[in-house]
Amino acid sequence: MTTAAEVLARCAQLDRCSASPHHLERVHLTPEHAAANRLAAGWLEQAGLRTWQDAAGNQWGRREARTPGRPALVLGSHLDTVPDAGSYDGMLGVVMAIAVAERLRGTDLPFALEVVGFGDEEGARFGKALLGSSAVAGTWDPAWAELRDRDGTTLRQAFLDFGLDVARVGEAARRPEELVGYLEAHIEQGPYLEAADRSLGYVTTIAGARRFLLTVVGEARHAGGTPYPRRRDALVGAGEAVVAVERLARDGGCLATVGRIQVWPGAVNVIPGRAELSLDLRAGTDAQRDAMWDRMRAEIAAICDRRALALEVVETHRAPAAPCAPWLQQAVVDGIRTTDDVGAHEPMALWSPAGHDAMAIAAVTDVGMLFLRCADGISHSPDESVRAVDVARGLDALEAAVLRVAAEVTAR
Amino acid sequence: MTTAAEVLARCAQLDRCSASPHHLERVHLTPEHAAANRLAAGWLEQAGLRTWQDAAGNQWGRREARTPGRPALVLGSHLDTVPDAGSYDGMLGVVMAIAVAERLRGTDLPFALEVVGFGDEEGARFGKALLGSSAVAGTWDPAWAELRDRDGTTLRQAFLDFGLDVARVGEAARRPEELVGYLEAHIEQGPYLEAADRSLGYVTTIAGARRFLLTVVGEARHAGGTPYPRRRDALVGAGEAVVAVERLARDGGCLATVGRIQVWPGAVNVIPGRAELSLDLRAGTDAQRDAMWDRMRAEIAAICDRRALALEVVETHRAPAAPCAPWLQQAVVDGIRTTDDVGAHEPMALWSPAGHDAMAIAAVTDVGMLFLRCADGISHSPDESVRAVDVARGLDALEAAVLRVAAEVTAR
Repeated sequence: MTTAAEVLARCAQLDRCSASPHHLERVHLTPEHAAANRLAAGWLEQAGLRTWQDAAGNQWGRREARTPGRPALVLGSHLDTVPDAGSYDGMLGVVMAIAVAERLRGTDLPFALEVVGFGDEEGARFGKALLGSSAVAGTWDPAWAELRDRDGTTLRQAFLDFGLDVARVGEAARRPEELVGYLEAHIEQGPYLEAADRSLGYVTTIAGARRFLLTVVGEARHAGGTPYPRRRDALVGAGEAVVAVERLARDGGCLATVGRIQVWPGAVNVIPGRAELSLDLRAGTDAQRDAMWDRMRAEIAAICDRRALALEVVETHRAPAAPCAPWLQQAVVDGIRTTDDVGAHEPMALWSPAGHDAMAIAAVTDVGMLFLRCADGISHSPDESVRAVDVARGLDALEAAVLRVAAEVTAR
Repeated sequence: MTTAAEVLARCAQLDRCSASPHHLERVHLTPEHAAANRLAAGWLEQAGLRTWQDAAGNQWGRREARTPGRPALVLGSHLDTVPDAGSYDGMLGVVMAIAVAERLRGTDLPFALEVVGFGDEEGARFGKALLGSSAVAGTWDPAWAELRDRDGTTLRQAFLDFGLDVARVGEAARRPEELVGYLEAHIEQGPYLEAADRSLGYVTTIAGARRFLLTVVGEARHAGGTPYPRRRDALVGAGEAVVAVERLARDGGCLATVGRIQVWPGAVNVIPGRAELSLDLRAGTDAQRDAMWDRMRAEIAAICDRRALALEVVETHRAPAAPCAPWLQQAVVDGIRTTDDVGAHEPMALWSPAGHDAMAIAAVTDVGMLFLRCADGISHSPDESVRAVDVARGLDALEAAVLRVAAEVTAR
């Protein structure tokens, strides 16, 4: 039986598949992505699964039921990371899925068991999230082939460099009738389990983010020679916008983050003539989120107007909230109950402000999610940390949830 | 006699020495720097000057007086640019100096006449301004050899790549007894000549800038999973600082500019854990400037304290105000009076908020400066523009100023 210690050791092994020896960075369609897929494939084969890499660069494994060709219950998460990432966001879910498949090796299940490691969830390379799971869900947009990374490489070219052809990405899509459902384990990336002193929680719904690229255009002029009445400083306008975004989101119960900013020409003695900002906006419901965006857009436009700056807005991402299927929520709840985590309490329900592959997969099959406590809610940082006891309980809960799904499918 | 049209055509020729075919960018110790030196050397030789490139990469020309070996009056400016620059900031002064040397070819002067095109004034590559003129003034700091550009290349290595040895940069230094003085023509980079409908002005003093690198350190965390009470967003703190810098400088009659900003890790879905800002601060007097910095630093520190962010401050540049020598101010005034610019008015006196090579050269000899009107005060932008009539008057005034210096030296 694969232990929590082994799971954590495998996460540490994956850390070595990185663009840099100094920090963890594994973005889509890179040599380190290929290396992580190879590692995962090796573990899958050890667990007795047949492996393949699909047309979108996702790594798969499958073990047939006694009757081959049955629909599959898929367990998994993603193998890509943000720059300077921690070791668990995504990877823990993949490694736990492999461990559970290994534990269930001798168990007779009424479905095929599949494990997936998605190649892109974060969107760190091409600015577009969930590329891997969107391909699997069949919601891939052919226009994405022309997205470019920071070096100007198109997604089309990156596919070629990885040994794939973006024109064939449709082959990665799965049909609903091939699937029983999708279960994903993931660190909470929030503080609520820790605050409640719980190891595990189940997810009710995943909030959909909207993302924007905001461009503020002023005039590049000499820092010494331009008095204030003649300045149209794009960065001061952008700075006001960043502060306003925080104030509006906080007061409105939403989450908004400007994670990227770039200014041109970017010289110490030149007033910035252009600033580009990313904006990521999340809320408990799509309606709340969209109303917040309307207010933000109006306020940022007013800031730019006052400063004689032009504002350009491009929406780069919009995902609807994805509810977890009640029967898979129940399977996860039942799984958690088999552990010694909850005692007399009910398992803890959480909604996820963070996006997950399960959001994309919800378009093609039912999804459920198990959250694990992480230290101080930290993620997207090398300080990400999980406790071995939580991983051990998580493995037990996920295995039990699969058996609960099996009982449900058998009873249908 | 070299005309304004020819001067403007030579500025356009220099535009072709650029890192990019799409915009003008010519930073220190690059192939385009070498190409600009070669162009200038050709023109200097045409004008009858002996040419050399000094140990710091500055381009020189010299024509002896009737008696060889006399001290030199130096005319010049710089040949480097900011990224996405205009055609005149620096280059116009070099090309006008060459043209005036050509006009004075047959004239018997009591000093050698030298022309210099400095290789670095803007500091755009290594973040340190006035590298070329500091070498000539003998104020070079050996520690600068370890400065790095954005790609991590040290100044030491850049010297080698350019065919120079930074250990020998001292050979570029001039001694006071070799020099009569330094006259520099430059676009105003401000709106005052245009507002007064004048072609030309003379400079009384050059304000010294102080520059800082401000680093705001928070915590990189997941944009979705981190509620506001747990956020320590370095960019929101930096945004407040940028807005405060503008307010304080404007209300205090100073000029302050944040021209660069960078955040880490720089992903759309990660709260920035670190932000770096450049700050450029100028005022009419050093005392006013230093008092403003004390206020700014206190206010930025308070912003960071409120947000549980750490603040690191490094001063990257500090230049004292450099007054122009009264006798060279007078020579420039007399030169302007010979043109049809002023009519019944006195030539216009200006102090320069922008730094100039003359600031560094003031450490080794007397300096004077002639300012030319530029359209809308714009510089450090491809929209920089000068009128041919102003260049024609500028050539007349600079030539007349040289003759005024000659009369003064003869009379000593």
